[in-house]
Amino acid sequence: MDKKIPYKIYLSEDEIPTQWYNVRADMKNKPAPLINPGTGQPLTLEDLNPIFCEDLNKQELDNETPYFDIPQEIQDFYKMYRPSPLIRAYFLEKALGTPAHIYYKFEGNNTSGSHKLNSSIAQAYYAKKQGLKGVTTETGAGQWGTALSMACSYFDLDCKVYMVKCSYEQKPFRREVMRTYGATVTPSPSMTTQVGKKILSEHPDTTGSLGCAISEAVEAAVTNPGYRYVLGSVLNQVLLHQTIIGLETQKALKKYDIKPDIIIGCAGGGSNLGGLATPFIGEMLRGEADYKVIAVEPASCPSFTRGKYAYDFCDTGMICPLAKMYTLGSQFIPSANHAGGLRFHGMSPILSQLYHDGLFEARAVEQTAVFEAATQFARVEGILPAPESSHAIRVAIDEALKCKETGEAKNIVFGLTGTGYFDLYAYEQYNSKTMTDVIPSDETIAEYLAKLPKVGNE
Amino acid sequence: MDKKIPYKIYLSEDEIPTQWYNVRADMKNKPAPLINPGTGQPLTLEDLNPIFCEDLNKQELDNETPYFDIPQEIQDFYKMYRPSPLIRAYFLEKALGTPAHIYYKFEGNNTSGSHKLNSSIAQAYYAKKQGLKGVTTETGAGQWGTALSMACSYFDLDCKVYMVKCSYEQKPFRREVMRTYGATVTPSPSMTTQVGKKILSEHPDTTGSLGCAISEAVEAAVTNPGYRYVLGSVLNQVLLHQTIIGLETQKALKKYDIKPDIIIGCAGGGSNLGGLATPFIGEMLRGEADYKVIAVEPASCPSFTRGKYAYDFCDTGMICPLAKMYTLGSQFIPSANHAGGLRFHGMSPILSQLYHDGLFEARAVEQTAVFEAATQFARVEGILPAPESSHAIRVAIDEALKCKETGEAKNIVFGLTGTGYFDLYAYEQYNSKTMTDVIPSDETIAEYLAKLPKVGNE
Repeated sequence: MDKKIPYKIYLSEDEIPTQWYNVRADMKNKPAPLINPGTGQPLTLEDLNPIFCEDLNKQELDNETPYFDIPQEIQDFYKMYRPSPLIRAYFLEKALGTPAHIYYKFEGNNTSGSHKLNSSIAQAYYAKKQGLKGVTTETGAGQWGTALSMACSYFDLDCKVYMVKCSYEQKPFRREVMRTYGATVTPSPSMTTQVGKKILSEHPDTTGSLGCAISEAVEAAVTNPGYRYVLGSVLNQVLLHQTIIGLETQKALKKYDIKPDIIIGCAGGGSNLGGLATPFIGEMLRGEADYKVIAVEPASCPSFTRGKYAYDFCDTGMICPLAKMYTLGSQFIPSANHAGGLRFHGMSPILSQLYHDGLFEARAVEQTAVFEAATQFARVEGILPAPESSHAIRVAIDEALKCKETGEAKNIVFGLTGTGYFDLYAYEQYNSKTMTDVIPSDETIAEYLAKLPKVGNE
Repeated sequence: MDKKIPYKIYLSEDEIPTQWYNVRADMKNKPAPLINPGTGQPLTLEDLNPIFCEDLNKQELDNETPYFDIPQEIQDFYKMYRPSPLIRAYFLEKALGTPAHIYYKFEGNNTSGSHKLNSSIAQAYYAKKQGLKGVTTETGAGQWGTALSMACSYFDLDCKVYMVKCSYEQKPFRREVMRTYGATVTPSPSMTTQVGKKILSEHPDTTGSLGCAISEAVEAAVTNPGYRYVLGSVLNQVLLHQTIIGLETQKALKKYDIKPDIIIGCAGGGSNLGGLATPFIGEMLRGEADYKVIAVEPASCPSFTRGKYAYDFCDTGMICPLAKMYTLGSQFIPSANHAGGLRFHGMSPILSQLYHDGLFEARAVEQTAVFEAATQFARVEGILPAPESSHAIRVAIDEALKCKETGEAKNIVFGLTGTGYFDLYAYEQYNSKTMTDVIPSDETIAEYLAKLPKVGNE
């Protein structure tokens, strides 16, 4: 074992970054603006303010400012669970017999169980600062809802969570954590909103999707005075807040003079990948360094690898703004047989533009292969990973095994976004060998892509 | 906020202790020996070796050696999740408005979710060294079973876990983590052992107890060639391994010149309290320092505060050796209404002797008050605590509020043994206000104490 590099590289609290990084400032091709589906015009602050928090909207639309100061209140909260460790996977390397050096940035050591807390505390802070009563949101696997509940509890804000129905039923524990932190949790689609009623009347047996839940949460925000809608991924502001992950990773690597060769993150809406990778991609955009960055997505919901780069709705109910992104179509709902998160049909507009410009590559992986990697990792590294994070583990192991073949001692860095403590039904499926891979056919994908809106795409 | 002391004090990996501390070496009054219930004679290595691992038995009987070297293989594994942080509870202090400084040693940042991994990895190591095929054990809340499964997976040992039936049913997720790590999990009492059959024929509706499960696991060890029994608490060897907690705490406090006034730990079988407190109690025994140490136990299972210091069986089946300890009687089974762990009728013989000699005090707390403290702590400190650990939180808050009255800035240190991610049914009970306190009557306790064995007590 390398004597110089410890198992866990911790920064001191003084070293936690005090600014977030906005990769848009370094992008020559800026991400396409959100547009109003009614007018086809780019959205303005005035359009956004009735739905989202004002300061967050400024962050959303700012393509120029490279760094945003992190308010002191948020810095204080970060100290509760940050800095997160960058862990050298000595045990995994040994198990694989690879000459590669594998590192993972572990964001699961907080009660939300994931990186989502990095943005939820920021969004709750700005909502409080604006004098709001509360916020509404959707949650898929439950990580974002838990993170937002914790943040709202901290700032004494009301929190209404619409939880994708299949997760609500499969993950009663995550639901109960949210309730412990004082949130109201409603399974989506529900009869509490117009859009929920409409979806249920058309698809009474639906197990829900992130897209449906977004529609309901937005409706609840605009129809309840003193409420705004907040979102845990996809948006530019979320990627901004999540850069705390990549910025800490850069500092930790620098402490030991480690230059990463490969950077790997799972991608659902893009908040983890964007948070981890954009500070590195910024170096590439500025011509300072070159990295191989890999986005990993589920084969059952392959936005980057089989989707289209086009304007689309972010939600199934088609009430949100249009974003230009890699999408499978807003009506695409991944198979209920898919066990993990990353169930979103679209993708962060920032990452979509960067992918379109060739700044990183993408791979789709099947879920049984993902859980195989998860189990191998858990047994040697001692951390039971979230299914989402395990997509990145799968590709990190694949890359490390390639190094074994070639004899190259590459530095591989991946994001371990969270723990799988609330995903044991999925592990049970895998352990009992009832898990299968369901991959959408070309016909299915073509069918949904044919329904993309005309606005923005003509 | 105090500028000098960070939120989280981390030792470097070089500073992780390389020896465990054996408080028995400093005790003038040694703990009473285990005795053979058949002969009334103290147990020897020869008596113990058919049941337990040989090297562990040497540790068990050694009252003289003050420090034991931690084998390199165990030190390597410790680096996977240690050092654990000593956290300054700035947010809790602020919420309480107390001048006290509160610190907690957090052992929950590993997939077993608790401190139990500190001893399970040691026990698995010595079992492997002895060339065994596997080990058997019992688990209550599931923390010990999970920790042992992880350790056995690491050393490629078979692991048979008898899980207290009510936990098996209430905590399917914990059970599934054990299975992910390759363990066999059986609800106890079961029909797989003679003692299980006997208990079920006498009490067909029993929800089980740690005592029952111990009896079954011991029987499974002695009837399966190549297996030995291992135990997650009570035994001297377990307290020895757990001193890594207290030794790290001492080093972390010394880094910032903090002298603790009050040290608080929850007590079920005693492994956490012993691990945290005996290095400090050792200083007291050697006349080097003085601390107020408080053991916190559930009012529904009050071994220290309402039990008797006498020889008793460690297990309900009465097949284990007799230990001199504070006990409620081996037939005492806490109410199924009691939601947390700490369900054991007896107590570590080392702690029992120290308590008998006045080295620390004990308090019994009711579970609704415990969950009130747990929820308050979760909301401000961001960590959802295990019900067991929350007993210590309750008393830490009580002591901090006393400081608020007196204006004293005492240093309070408590052990946060683990997280409550697998205890959400208990939180649900508390959240929905269906949780009640059940405290055994004096008559009930007297009834069970009247049944203590004669051997050792005459």
